[in-house]
Amino acid sequence: MTGRAGAPGRPGTGSRRTLLGVDVGGTKIAAGLVAEDGTLLETVVRPTPARQGPTAVLDAIAAAVRELPDHAGAAGLGLGTGGVVDRDGGVVVSANELLPGWAGTRLADELGHRLGIPVAADNDANVFALAEQTYGAGAGSTTALYVSVGTGIGGGLVTGGRLLRGAHWTAGEFGHIAVPEAAGRPCNCGRDGHLEAVAAGPAIAARFSRLAGRPRPADLREVAALAERAAPPADPDGTPPQAPGDESALARTVLAEGAGALGRALAGLVNTFDPERVVVGGGVASVGDPFWQPLAEAFAAELLPGPSAAGLRPLPAALGPRAAVIGAAALLLEHR
Amino acid sequence: MTGRAGAPGRPGTGSRRTLLGVDVGGTKIAAGLVAEDGTLLETVVRPTPARQGPTAVLDAIAAAVRELPDHAGAAGLGLGTGGVVDRDGGVVVSANELLPGWAGTRLADELGHRLGIPVAADNDANVFALAEQTYGAGAGSTTALYVSVGTGIGGGLVTGGRLLRGAHWTAGEFGHIAVPEAAGRPCNCGRDGHLEAVAAGPAIAARFSRLAGRPRPADLREVAALAERAAPPADPDGTPPQAPGDESALARTVLAEGAGALGRALAGLVNTFDPERVVVGGGVASVGDPFWQPLAEAFAAELLPGPSAAGLRPLPAALGPRAAVIGAAALLLEHR
Repeated sequence: MTGRAGAPGRPGTGSRRTLLGVDVGGTKIAAGLVAEDGTLLETVVRPTPARQGPTAVLDAIAAAVRELPDHAGAAGLGLGTGGVVDRDGGVVVSANELLPGWAGTRLADELGHRLGIPVAADNDANVFALAEQTYGAGAGSTTALYVSVGTGIGGGLVTGGRLLRGAHWTAGEFGHIAVPEAAGRPCNCGRDGHLEAVAAGPAIAARFSRLAGRPRPADLREVAALAERAAPPADPDGTPPQAPGDESALARTVLAEGAGALGRALAGLVNTFDPERVVVGGGVASVGDPFWQPLAEAFAAELLPGPSAAGLRPLPAALGPRAAVIGAAALLLEHR
Repeated sequence: MTGRAGAPGRPGTGSRRTLLGVDVGGTKIAAGLVAEDGTLLETVVRPTPARQGPTAVLDAIAAAVRELPDHAGAAGLGLGTGGVVDRDGGVVVSANELLPGWAGTRLADELGHRLGIPVAADNDANVFALAEQTYGAGAGSTTALYVSVGTGIGGGLVTGGRLLRGAHWTAGEFGHIAVPEAAGRPCNCGRDGHLEAVAAGPAIAARFSRLAGRPRPADLREVAALAERAAPPADPDGTPPQAPGDESALARTVLAEGAGALGRALAGLVNTFDPERVVVGGGVASVGDPFWQPLAEAFAAELLPGPSAAGLRPLPAALGPRAAVIGAAALLLEHR
């Protein structure tokens, strides 16, 4: 609800053009007022009335936007949402059960009608990538790979300075590559053995919970907190370490497993795409060292020796949890 | 040495502009006269004096070109070669031991000097992809994935109608993705577990030879011939089938293993890129059904359900073993 900018200026009225960005998830709508330089000036977060259907969600988006100070001065609205989105038409092509009935929703038309401004829409992983490409860790690059690791794994690929949408608007589904580490593990997509089944947050937390014998599953935050805890010093009698120490080591192990699988998969994608930069964001990436260290090590070990390997390492995304809001706004600036 | 064209016209002299294309491998130089519509009019194949070093190879390329009838009328020469090639500068960035000293060779300058015509150069997998994109199975597509499976696995990715070169000229190294099926198997690149270690021709032949207990290793052609042989009818007494039948079944199994790994990896790349077309060529792909059937099945089973899956299947490359010659010539027509 508070702006990130030191000097918000006079949004929408004077020298500084402003845009609206909205990130629509299954549980929350985040709407923001974004300066053209990518500064997030104001944010409003409201629940998504997903069960009430698309019309209720569209109304809630419009209401959240209208709560933003100075929203009326914005030049347009960009929106990122889960599912496959036709970027040209601003229409949801397909979506999962988190947003029932969302497929077929004419986002650009419906919100343009409600708010009276130009509206653009895209997939939420695409707008994350667009944000980091335009204002974040990938700014200035021509070819870059963006991966967001959270409850799922998605991302985007920039070639020739432009975000690749693909032939059917589904480019960037990095989570659904078969990786050796995930062999036999079920994936959210219905197949098994995919990267998402071993490196996404719920997969890491579920594996921890099973191996720790937890009656109630832990979430990723708890796993991360355990991993940060220092391992207890080894007992000189050779007594096995206490349970908290066990859980701490186990948390580090499962995080390293997921991060290692991601690092190797990213290196394979680098061998395939040869990007200038590789940027990793999302909730799992924000765990810190217990995730980043094994990620970087596995990435480096798997990369082909040669020109594309020199100095390349995964970079943390720069824009934080509101990257999708900023990237949604950036849809309006995109040259296509 | 013979042209493919029904009506070769009057190359280089009249209404039909011709180009020269050269494919330089570790053992052979193939030079061709190519019409602007992609028709290969004439071909000359000569040994590569690889051990004698880059100058000898350059001289041999120039000599092979001069053997082509009507070479003097060609508008330019395009060249594809193993190794990493700087497409803009026409310089070899790196190469392997098949062409000793090749790294650093200024292909465009040196051959331009020898032949007095404009010269462009690129990696051989890239020119394969360019050929199929310009004249072959990918013609008319905007986003496409090209994979060549032979002694190695390489390829190219077209986005926005243009071949992706990457930030360091190494894009398209599809062979060096970690795949579950290759776990623990050494790859030519020095790592292990890569697609090339299970789906390239030598990997398939080596696995067959080991499992068949062959004292002398079989080559892929032999494996393919065995796979084509009908399995003998089961003996009503339950006697185990004869050795030839065993080898025939084994040949089908190892081909299916390699093809299955490739099919799953390609589906993962489709989930990542969302191409309109997926084109597979190279010597291994020309084996026929014992390769294509398991390839197509594994591809279909692994593809994510959704819009990009509908109707997509791997297509055989259309231009045959001289695709690289044709694609090398097409470098001169490329809009960049």
